[in-house]
Amino acid sequence: MKQVAIGVDIGGTNTVLGLVDQSGEVIERHSIPTKTQADYKIYMNQLADAINELINKANIQTEVMGIGVGAPNGNYYNGTIEFAPNLNFKGVVPVVDFLRDKFDYKVIVLTNDANAAAIGEMIYGGAKGMKDFIMITLGTGVGSGIVVNGEMVYGHDGFAGEIGHTIVDPNGRDCGCGRKGCLETYTSARGIKRTVFELLATMNEPSILRGVSFNDLQAKMIDEAARNGDLIAKEAFDYTGEILGLNLANAVAHTSPEAIFLFGGLAQAGELIFDPVKHYLEEHLLNIYKNKVKVLPSELPPGDAAVLGASALVWKELG
Amino acid sequence: MKQVAIGVDIGGTNTVLGLVDQSGEVIERHSIPTKTQADYKIYMNQLADAINELINKANIQTEVMGIGVGAPNGNYYNGTIEFAPNLNFKGVVPVVDFLRDKFDYKVIVLTNDANAAAIGEMIYGGAKGMKDFIMITLGTGVGSGIVVNGEMVYGHDGFAGEIGHTIVDPNGRDCGCGRKGCLETYTSARGIKRTVFELLATMNEPSILRGVSFNDLQAKMIDEAARNGDLIAKEAFDYTGEILGLNLANAVAHTSPEAIFLFGGLAQAGELIFDPVKHYLEEHLLNIYKNKVKVLPSELPPGDAAVLGASALVWKELG
Repeated sequence: MKQVAIGVDIGGTNTVLGLVDQSGEVIERHSIPTKTQADYKIYMNQLADAINELINKANIQTEVMGIGVGAPNGNYYNGTIEFAPNLNFKGVVPVVDFLRDKFDYKVIVLTNDANAAAIGEMIYGGAKGMKDFIMITLGTGVGSGIVVNGEMVYGHDGFAGEIGHTIVDPNGRDCGCGRKGCLETYTSARGIKRTVFELLATMNEPSILRGVSFNDLQAKMIDEAARNGDLIAKEAFDYTGEILGLNLANAVAHTSPEAIFLFGGLAQAGELIFDPVKHYLEEHLLNIYKNKVKVLPSELPPGDAAVLGASALVWKELG
Repeated sequence: MKQVAIGVDIGGTNTVLGLVDQSGEVIERHSIPTKTQADYKIYMNQLADAINELINKANIQTEVMGIGVGAPNGNYYNGTIEFAPNLNFKGVVPVVDFLRDKFDYKVIVLTNDANAAAIGEMIYGGAKGMKDFIMITLGTGVGSGIVVNGEMVYGHDGFAGEIGHTIVDPNGRDCGCGRKGCLETYTSARGIKRTVFELLATMNEPSILRGVSFNDLQAKMIDEAARNGDLIAKEAFDYTGEILGLNLANAVAHTSPEAIFLFGGLAQAGELIFDPVKHYLEEHLLNIYKNKVKVLPSELPPGDAAVLGASALVWKELG
């Protein structure tokens, strides 16, 4: 009997499920749509069915050790999704209570997706053996998971670790959260797009990006332009790295981690983003922290990272 | 036999020692100069003598449970003071190793003064029973101690919790740390003085503070002027509260504490500083954190707070 954990990643469009062993191998996968359901009870029944299907698909003998769920606005203490702006469900969804009614596993836990990514990195990835690190997810939004002394920081209310919503400039860019100047407005995929448009306005250099509308511009095009020497695109990466480096220096002044992992679309740009982040992080670090903090790419495979992170919650809970 | 802990607060000018019981009563006090010694070995021998004197002074039967030391740039893991700019000792001072050679107590620990204040608040003060809180010390500098899930956050290297050196504005005021725009340059006693001088330059309102030189201006005079309705002084408190409130909102986005305690000279200004801090904190908090975080005055008696904090390290270690 192989011990496995079920990882469930609830995304805005789809929910992806995986049966994962302790080494991080995904043995089986399954998925269902999230978006089509506004009534969470119907969705939760579908999720329960999907979990059963997933278990039945496994063509080896498995012992399921528990279910881990990663979800936007997931609350670890309550086992709920609370007022998630990118999901159709309104209000508070009692995910863990619902799953407890359907399944008898000792471990059924939920947290937000960035925390799940951090635990995934700790269990299967580059943070194995690290006690203090920070995971930054650079995607549509910017999420974070903070680990202190080997434990996830959940805070008083289960919502700790929203570095993407630390305010860089209180008079800065409009953020989806209703405030202004959050880190996310500069360092998400949309953030670097906004930076390109700001630079197209302030700089006179020619750029291939001058022919692209805001709606058409994609982060990948900025990446490609920068690799072809486009000055505006290169400057956009530098500026993004500067804002991120400065704010990571501030994060270090809170929990003094051994490493900061970057994950998600923008992190795929490799040295285009890592070089300026490292440079500006060091520049802005308080003396006592200089030359100590590693900035590393996540070692989780991008395609399975969310499900791996969710499943890792189970091993973390048992460990 | 009454169980007691020895608290040692190493300050730039004097080192204050206290024999403290578990309720936080200081049974005996003693002090020696810190500043006169540049050779730490001579100083450490004097400190050992002072500890023995302190124990001998107690006119009740006591069982000493250990020694806790609070010091600037104190490192919990190493038990050392490392490159403290405000002490005469150069380099690394192995305080705990030295005391271990002289004393046989099971617990001999050291941390920085702001962390000691946080542990003091947790053991004797307003943070009793709290699992997640932040202590901010507003003195000559601005220090902080972060507690997560009932444990002090020391970080990878023992130097975590320097919120006073998070950067508010990378082009801002010169900081003693060599960088620019640290929180400390705005919200320390010197910080509010600097703000007054900025306001005297930018505003036209009459103010009693227009007759005072930078060297002569003291934080207490700003407090008094504000209470007498001086607009510049009131604005200085408002601005200080705004900067602090904004940056505390960012700190909340890291560890989501139940409460933030303010301690030190500027915190003594009462509602003059607490009102704007609370106002701007709420204004800048991400939705999920709003109306949850208490901003409270430290409940440690100002005169004994440092020694209490240092002694509390012992009870924390035993607890």
